[in-house]
Amino acid sequence: MSPRLVATYRVRAEPGSIEARAQAIAVEQSVEMPPAAIDTARILAEVVGTVEACIDRGGGLFDIRIGLATETIGTDAGQLLNMLFGNTSLHPDVTLIGVDLPVTLAAAFPGPRIGLAGLRARLGVPDRALTGSALKPQGLDAEALAALAGRFAAGGIDLVKDDHGLADQATAPFAARVPACAEAVRRAARATGHPTRYAPSLSGPHGVMRAQIRLAREAGVDTVLVAPMIAGFATVQALAAEFPDIALLAHPALGGAARIAPEVLIGTLFPLIGADAAIFPAHGGRFGYSPTTCRRIAAAARHPPHGHPPHRHRPALPVPAGGMTLARVPELLDFYGPDTMLLIGGNLLAAGAELTAATARFVRAVADHRPPPT
Amino acid sequence: MSPRLVATYRVRAEPGSIEARAQAIAVEQSVEMPPAAIDTARILAEVVGTVEACIDRGGGLFDIRIGLATETIGTDAGQLLNMLFGNTSLHPDVTLIGVDLPVTLAAAFPGPRIGLAGLRARLGVPDRALTGSALKPQGLDAEALAALAGRFAAGGIDLVKDDHGLADQATAPFAARVPACAEAVRRAARATGHPTRYAPSLSGPHGVMRAQIRLAREAGVDTVLVAPMIAGFATVQALAAEFPDIALLAHPALGGAARIAPEVLIGTLFPLIGADAAIFPAHGGRFGYSPTTCRRIAAAARHPPHGHPPHRHRPALPVPAGGMTLARVPELLDFYGPDTMLLIGGNLLAAGAELTAATARFVRAVADHRPPPT
Repeated sequence: MSPRLVATYRVRAEPGSIEARAQAIAVEQSVEMPPAAIDTARILAEVVGTVEACIDRGGGLFDIRIGLATETIGTDAGQLLNMLFGNTSLHPDVTLIGVDLPVTLAAAFPGPRIGLAGLRARLGVPDRALTGSALKPQGLDAEALAALAGRFAAGGIDLVKDDHGLADQATAPFAARVPACAEAVRRAARATGHPTRYAPSLSGPHGVMRAQIRLAREAGVDTVLVAPMIAGFATVQALAAEFPDIALLAHPALGGAARIAPEVLIGTLFPLIGADAAIFPAHGGRFGYSPTTCRRIAAAARHPPHGHPPHRHRPALPVPAGGMTLARVPELLDFYGPDTMLLIGGNLLAAGAELTAATARFVRAVADHRPPPT
Repeated sequence: MSPRLVATYRVRAEPGSIEARAQAIAVEQSVEMPPAAIDTARILAEVVGTVEACIDRGGGLFDIRIGLATETIGTDAGQLLNMLFGNTSLHPDVTLIGVDLPVTLAAAFPGPRIGLAGLRARLGVPDRALTGSALKPQGLDAEALAALAGRFAAGGIDLVKDDHGLADQATAPFAARVPACAEAVRRAARATGHPTRYAPSLSGPHGVMRAQIRLAREAGVDTVLVAPMIAGFATVQALAAEFPDIALLAHPALGGAARIAPEVLIGTLFPLIGADAAIFPAHGGRFGYSPTTCRRIAAAARHPPHGHPPHRHRPALPVPAGGMTLARVPELLDFYGPDTMLLIGGNLLAAGAELTAATARFVRAVADHRPPPT
């Protein structure tokens, strides 16, 4: 009998109906047919989902823990997501809030290959928090984006990434943009002495992304951006396996806010399938994530919850982003701690002609920050 | 200047803040930075999203129509989804409820290649509604699933599809399951004289799905099942382009219920990127979709809203499913009309040893149904 993973769902239900709801979800996420119509004893015993616990959270909310047979998943990350939340996502009153994988299943997924420690090593930054920014807006041509990338790098920043909206548009095609930005960053990095990284954004189906990574690698790039909910989990898993030297930054686009808890989707599942860093909407910015949610995402990324040594995955780098400002750096670092990359885009870009100086101030603010006395 | 597509979002907001919210969404889904920090006139005029309308729906809800430059999308289906709802999905109070594509952008996407008319032609069914069922449960081996497929086909059903939970598991690997099921269906179809189709479920990244389709095609299969939200839009678009002879049935897994209106996601976008048929949760079954939502999904699938001749896409086949019963066939057909496939799984499987007879009753009930007098 295959071991079980446990998915935890938060369900809104009448108290009198929760047992039936829990059973229905256990069936929906496994055999998807009436158990009474199954006449194979092995399937009834080993494959039908099981209700492991049902906890009343008050206010009409219940947390139900459903055991699912790992044999229904195999080793495909897309199928993992399908069995965790495929059909049940169609019920508007259910949220996936927790995933516990047995060691054998966790070991089937790559986890971060480079991760927090590898990214630190590449950047030569052993202990302080990391700094990042984004190339925008869409509509600039490759030359203008490259000039912008060079100005960020001249300020000594650790990472310059493409805006996630940059794909392979006619105004700045990938094949023109990426070598130009990589070269601009390399040139500036030679001047500063700091090995700033440039991360282009991948788009299209798997084969196109693979060609994009090869092109980027030829341009000296070792870090790329991908949105797992748009690319598909299986695509990310395949890229992680094919390019062990390329760091994957996961972007939360299309990740929603309401139906898979962000700490599960962004903090746990993205690193599980190969993300080395997980970008997420920081509290107090343009998005509505609470401080508690943000703390949980960061903690999940840094402390992979699955498996035990030697199967425990590497920690990933949490990257809060989205409407953060230079003025908030001390507060953000006090909150997130040093094992974090702060990603500040628009607020630096608003400096206009002073972009490099603003970037240098950002970098210095992070480097000079001292943790609050505990 | 590239033409604009218009995305309509339903937003919960205070009346006094809606104009600012609308502007913020227009920026978020385009340049994603403060317009004041953009110094390129062309980008301000042509790339920054525009608020086209803002309609008070009452009860604190507003429908805002945002114009987005098609140049930000190009021709990639993943990027289409990214620009429609990437970052804005992270706001829990926003739902994507409408998409209007200009002719030029619609023409960049394939639409159904086979569609409703092509599926009817393959099955030799010019006018009545179509019938389908699903192979379950997970955990059966290839031989048992093939036997089940043969028994469905012996009842004269039009389509037997894999349960969307069947992937490439050890109990019934794709390479063993698909030829066995295809052969069982072919043998039964020879006996009945009706060209029943078998549709296996694809899983894994694009390259694996491509190999699965090739294997299926060698086994005589011309129809497959794929879940676009798990596979990724770009993967589906690529498969549609690579296999013009293979009908794609779209499964709604992971499609959620709350944040992209089902008629947009399932009824409009899935066919746009190449789905020939769109499976959706029928009202009154296991899922909570309302009759109105279901009617809209079916209408959108049948009447592609995009473009004008000759760029108008083919109609797709709407496929209500999920907890439907044989007893409801007349009511369901009165509701959905004949350009529909009814997909009844568990209720037929519950017939056990009488599966073929129950299937034949289902087929006869559909064939004998007469529309209500109008």
